[in-house]
Amino acid sequence: MSTSTSGTPNPSPDGAVRRGRGRRPAEDVRADALHTVGKILLHEGLTGLTFERVARQAGVSKTTLYKWWPSTGALALEGYFHSVEVTLTFPDTGDIRADITTQLGSFVTLMTTTPAGRLLTELIGQSQTDQDLAIDYRRLYSSHRRQIAADRFTIAQKTGQIRAGVDVRVLVDQLWGAVYHRLLIPDEPVTEAFAIALVNNLFDGITPR
Amino acid sequence: MSTSTSGTPNPSPDGAVRRGRGRRPAEDVRADALHTVGKILLHEGLTGLTFERVARQAGVSKTTLYKWWPSTGALALEGYFHSVEVTLTFPDTGDIRADITTQLGSFVTLMTTTPAGRLLTELIGQSQTDQDLAIDYRRLYSSHRRQIAADRFTIAQKTGQIRAGVDVRVLVDQLWGAVYHRLLIPDEPVTEAFAIALVNNLFDGITPR
Repeated sequence: MSTSTSGTPNPSPDGAVRRGRGRRPAEDVRADALHTVGKILLHEGLTGLTFERVARQAGVSKTTLYKWWPSTGALALEGYFHSVEVTLTFPDTGDIRADITTQLGSFVTLMTTTPAGRLLTELIGQSQTDQDLAIDYRRLYSSHRRQIAADRFTIAQKTGQIRAGVDVRVLVDQLWGAVYHRLLIPDEPVTEAFAIALVNNLFDGITPR
Repeated sequence: MSTSTSGTPNPSPDGAVRRGRGRRPAEDVRADALHTVGKILLHEGLTGLTFERVARQAGVSKTTLYKWWPSTGALALEGYFHSVEVTLTFPDTGDIRADITTQLGSFVTLMTTTPAGRLLTELIGQSQTDQDLAIDYRRLYSSHRRQIAADRFTIAQKTGQIRAGVDVRVLVDQLWGAVYHRLLIPDEPVTEAFAIALVNNLFDGITPR
């Protein structure tokens, strides 16, 4: 839509870096678009997201947006993944239990105090009857998040912090999956205490030691 | 719609119990309707369920059906709850771990080999944007199932099989909730091995003992 910014910064007379006219590299355009999508989603949720608006705010043509993300769902999922990547980073203290507790706490806060919770539950909801969205959801979001968590548990398993023989993929369902369960069917609240109980139950086991 | 059956059984000449004309007691009508709904759902899923069909097959007027269940969702949820009550009964061997393993296995089989899995994920999906359905889902289905499981864990906790201090409500999310997570976002399959891993992780804990 706009080509008024460029990948080639030109120093302006006041010393600030300015961009001249020209084509921006595709990766910059893509990053700008995803950044714009993320900002919209974390402030307003899915209702605020349109191709029109992203095109305008990111200075990208709608044609380009549609080429990369053929649906609102795909656009939302990739934008969301990037926007929460830092918030959902696992700390690395060397203590898997502490790191998981911290990250799960951040996840719960994100889900309960920003539009992210509603965004994800709506996308998961729609994906039950929309096969394309279901595939996008896994391809662009959930499979990556699962892998990041599983990788972390695998490292901890190699250093003996997790018992050998434990299938680390199952742990994802018993921690984050348990949170999603309460978000999707809110019989019980999603709280910090719940997150801590999830970790305690799973790490210590629920039978007397 | 039909009053050709009655709550008062009349022995027929061949000795079989037959029903004469007259009004059936409301609880019989209700039970017949729920039974019909359950049969439809477990064979065909939600798509086969209409008020018309239940009225015809159960010999109940549509007016009566609407009085009790003002929406297809409500009708489906109560019919489904009754139809799976026996299948999802917890055995009582005195060994909580064995009983949970058996019941969770039955649940996984129900979800993966009958239309029940698709039925529930569709209802959960719709309930993300349909507030009335969300309330009905919890009121007519999930809150009852949660309570049954929590009660079972509470008994086991009193006999010392579950550590004191464990919030038994959280266990529901780490077992059945984990299964729902994979049903709703199928990055990984729902298998018997998965169910067993869920129980092992939670009962034994994932750190070295």
